[in-house]
Amino acid sequence: MAEQALIIDGKAAAASLRAEIGLEVAAIKARRGLVPGLHVVLVGDDPASRVYVASKEKLAAEIGMSSVAHRLPAETSEAELLAKLAELNADDSVDGILVQLPLPKHIDTGRVIDAIDPAKDVDGLHPINAGRLAGGKPGLVPCTPLGSMLLVKSVLPSLSGLEAVVVGRSELVGRPVAQLLLQADCTVTIAHSRTRDLAATCRRADILIAAVGRPGLVKGDWIKPGATVIDVGINRLPDGKLTGDVDFAEAVKVAGAITPVPGGVGPMTIACLLRNTLTAFHARRG
Amino acid sequence: MAEQALIIDGKAAAASLRAEIGLEVAAIKARRGLVPGLHVVLVGDDPASRVYVASKEKLAAEIGMSSVAHRLPAETSEAELLAKLAELNADDSVDGILVQLPLPKHIDTGRVIDAIDPAKDVDGLHPINAGRLAGGKPGLVPCTPLGSMLLVKSVLPSLSGLEAVVVGRSELVGRPVAQLLLQADCTVTIAHSRTRDLAATCRRADILIAAVGRPGLVKGDWIKPGATVIDVGINRLPDGKLTGDVDFAEAVKVAGAITPVPGGVGPMTIACLLRNTLTAFHARRG
Repeated sequence: MAEQALIIDGKAAAASLRAEIGLEVAAIKARRGLVPGLHVVLVGDDPASRVYVASKEKLAAEIGMSSVAHRLPAETSEAELLAKLAELNADDSVDGILVQLPLPKHIDTGRVIDAIDPAKDVDGLHPINAGRLAGGKPGLVPCTPLGSMLLVKSVLPSLSGLEAVVVGRSELVGRPVAQLLLQADCTVTIAHSRTRDLAATCRRADILIAAVGRPGLVKGDWIKPGATVIDVGINRLPDGKLTGDVDFAEAVKVAGAITPVPGGVGPMTIACLLRNTLTAFHARRG
Repeated sequence: MAEQALIIDGKAAAASLRAEIGLEVAAIKARRGLVPGLHVVLVGDDPASRVYVASKEKLAAEIGMSSVAHRLPAETSEAELLAKLAELNADDSVDGILVQLPLPKHIDTGRVIDAIDPAKDVDGLHPINAGRLAGGKPGLVPCTPLGSMLLVKSVLPSLSGLEAVVVGRSELVGRPVAQLLLQADCTVTIAHSRTRDLAATCRRADILIAAVGRPGLVKGDWIKPGATVIDVGINRLPDGKLTGDVDFAEAVKVAGAITPVPGGVGPMTIACLLRNTLTAFHARRG
């Protein structure tokens, strides 16, 4: 058989989401003279973090959002960072605050995240937002899970009653995406490194979300024919190439729809950050 | 075959947990002259709520804990209730605050729960505590899920890698117990009313938690032979008798261990409330 899965174009989906947000930003500007503002705080000079922050700034600017990067030196103390956050919390023109992770080792990440106003926590990492999500209540949802769900919904008209399997239980992706699938009325299984028969568990999935960070872990024969496969893994191989948690070449022959890496979930993450900034703007400024 | 499941004696487990807490309360009193204090707020005169509150008072008193019930009239305004909570939040002798639910309709339950100091939230319902649980961090955990887990652990030496299925996705039981099972390294599935084949899903479970409130929903042939079955349902039948979500007569012939209703999870819930009060005491007063 020459059949092949639909390849979900995350880059195109993200561009279209950004365009949609851009229209809304323009409308807000025209109607109310306000510009939603995203503030990114970067401590130190991790090269990957610098690239991410620059890319967030650029994409925010492209859709007409105000975007400010606060670049603090690596030796910034925890107290100084908390003071900066207190200032951004108090500033009414700041809609979204994102602290770029990882932070230098002398800073307690949990304490920093707890200090962000939950109403401006566009990364969705504050315990209040995690709790709202766990309780099925409205709040700000982490960007990668949100982007993954939008891609799932782009190919499945209804998720109700479908078997969803999430591989990986991280606070940033696995756990929140499981909550979103549950909200969408899926029967949700969370599998992980201790799962006895990971292959058989994955094979149950109508929707399979791989979020473990192990290149090519999910093989073609772990996939139920026709399943929707979302590959959240972004792993760098020794040759410098990026690859996902799913063996794409095998999986594309079995799945019904699948995201590539790169070009799948990745571009959706930043687009969802912009969307969260807009959501935070609306919730806070009405 | 005359084989029968081990019947997990929740009454005995709860009594032994309370005795253990009582010893710790006595030790705190002897060493530091302090008495952990549980405060229960009851608005109105719902007869079932009155019984629950009286039982909480009695059991707290039995183990030497200070226990105060604040009985407010049904016409108490939301502002008055919030003022009472502010007072209890500020009172250093108050370790645990529980607002008995349901509240009268003119009061917004979410707003009330949000107003409880998370460090004193012994019901574990504040979004901060739900978020900590969702993130796998320490916090106060709802009593019924906590009690259910203690019963599971009383019969299973290790939970790692076991298949757990939770039927029901309530904020109070299903979702938090799923989080606890995940923390214990189970592969966790959350099933619910939209699940396509509930029987087959349940049949996968090494640990089955039924928490839906539908009498006798789970049949004997939904149970994997030897499974541990925790029945969280407490349903009152027309004849006044209490029954669980599991068809006990059938299930007892298939399961490896099972909780009865009454006498299973129920007694553990109040014991875990006392345990949470002690946990809150330690976390707050060191």
